Amino acid sequence: MTKENTKSLLLEKGAEIILEKGFNNTGIQDILKAAQVPKGSFYYYFKSKEDFGLDLIDFYANNYTTMMEEYFKDPSTSPINRFKRYVDDWITYFDISNCKGGCPIGNMAQEMGDINESFRIKLKETFDRMKTHISECLREAQEKGEISESLDPDETADFIFDSLEGALLRMKVTKSTTPLKRFYKMISNILTKE
Amino acid sequence: MTKENTKSLLLEKGAEIILEKGFNNTGIQDILKAAQVPKGSFYYYFKSKEDFGLDLIDFYANNYTTMMEEYFKDPSTSPINRFKRYVDDWITYFDISNCKGGCPIGNMAQEMGDINESFRIKLKETFDRMKTHISECLREAQEKGEISESLDPDETADFIFDSLEGALLRMKVTKSTTPLKRFYKMISNILTKE
Repeated sequence: MTKENTKSLLLEKGAEIILEKGFNNTGIQDILKAAQVPKGSFYYYFKSKEDFGLDLIDFYANNYTTMMEEYFKDPSTSPINRFKRYVDDWITYFDISNCKGGCPIGNMAQEMGDINESFRIKLKETFDRMKTHISECLREAQEKGEISESLDPDETADFIFDSLEGALLRMKVTKSTTPLKRFYKMISNILTKE
Repeated sequence: MTKENTKSLLLEKGAEIILEKGFNNTGIQDILKAAQVPKGSFYYYFKSKEDFGLDLIDFYANNYTTMMEEYFKDPSTSPINRFKRYVDDWITYFDISNCKGGCPIGNMAQEMGDINESFRIKLKETFDRMKTHISECLREAQEKGEISESLDPDETADFIFDSLEGALLRMKVTKSTTPLKRFYKMISNILTKE
């Protein structure tokens, strides 16, 4: 296995475990065991568990922003339909996966936002990066006359993003995608009303 | 100190620490130290840390529903103004307390929703109890002609509740009450538009 592969494997396996158990509740041992990698390898790639956590946020951020770009810049469909597809596909995903996990970045924000300033800043930047995809899509939807002119694309995108995080949280305790469906319905009403 | 007082003290001190560090990241020792209570006392009141956690959710639920009742059933002001006061007072609170902690019940849901079924069920019920205060207030606002007739009070209350949780999460990483102010503005638009 190449060096890059081992590092990726540690991040991937760590992401899986942390999504279920949480960052503080996951030991380096758990990650090593899942990745079947010796302890020394971990410290070759990461200075500490904190260092691993910060790299993990980048790993999430890169995956999600790449995915969001594919949805929100898709020229084959209208901006408002891109948003619909994005939410629909998440609903399908969570219906299949028993509503587990929620948003890895949201989970990390909840857990680490108050206790680690480096995590907090990186998470804040990640949220900002992600919401930009939504605000740009809203701007395009306004240009095409699909949504209300009176909405501020940035403010609305931030609200959409926060509300989606809240819906994912509620999904976790209801074990149902109803909060996501409700989120989509209410946001659609906001976007299309004059 | 009476027995009831010791139990309350353990829950209060535990709540404080867990709000900052998280449930899994807090040891029984941390709680005992903060409450200045010997170890035996903990096991006199709680069978286990899990048992303590479940009692803690009840403790949160009772505090919050009592508080919500005071706001949302306040006969001295209009239903829509009760909602405004509720959000305004949270904004003031978080401005003073450096946007720390967020929602203890939301935090617990994020952390425990996937890993402990007893926690999940109790958290789901708590969320439902809390949102009922909002839906009843919306029903009253509709009767008084303050908000749109076309809104479903239950669905809208659930959406408001989830969006507030999301705004509190975003607040944690931005260290600013802007997400709460944005939440209030956007929800007000939904409520008053025909």
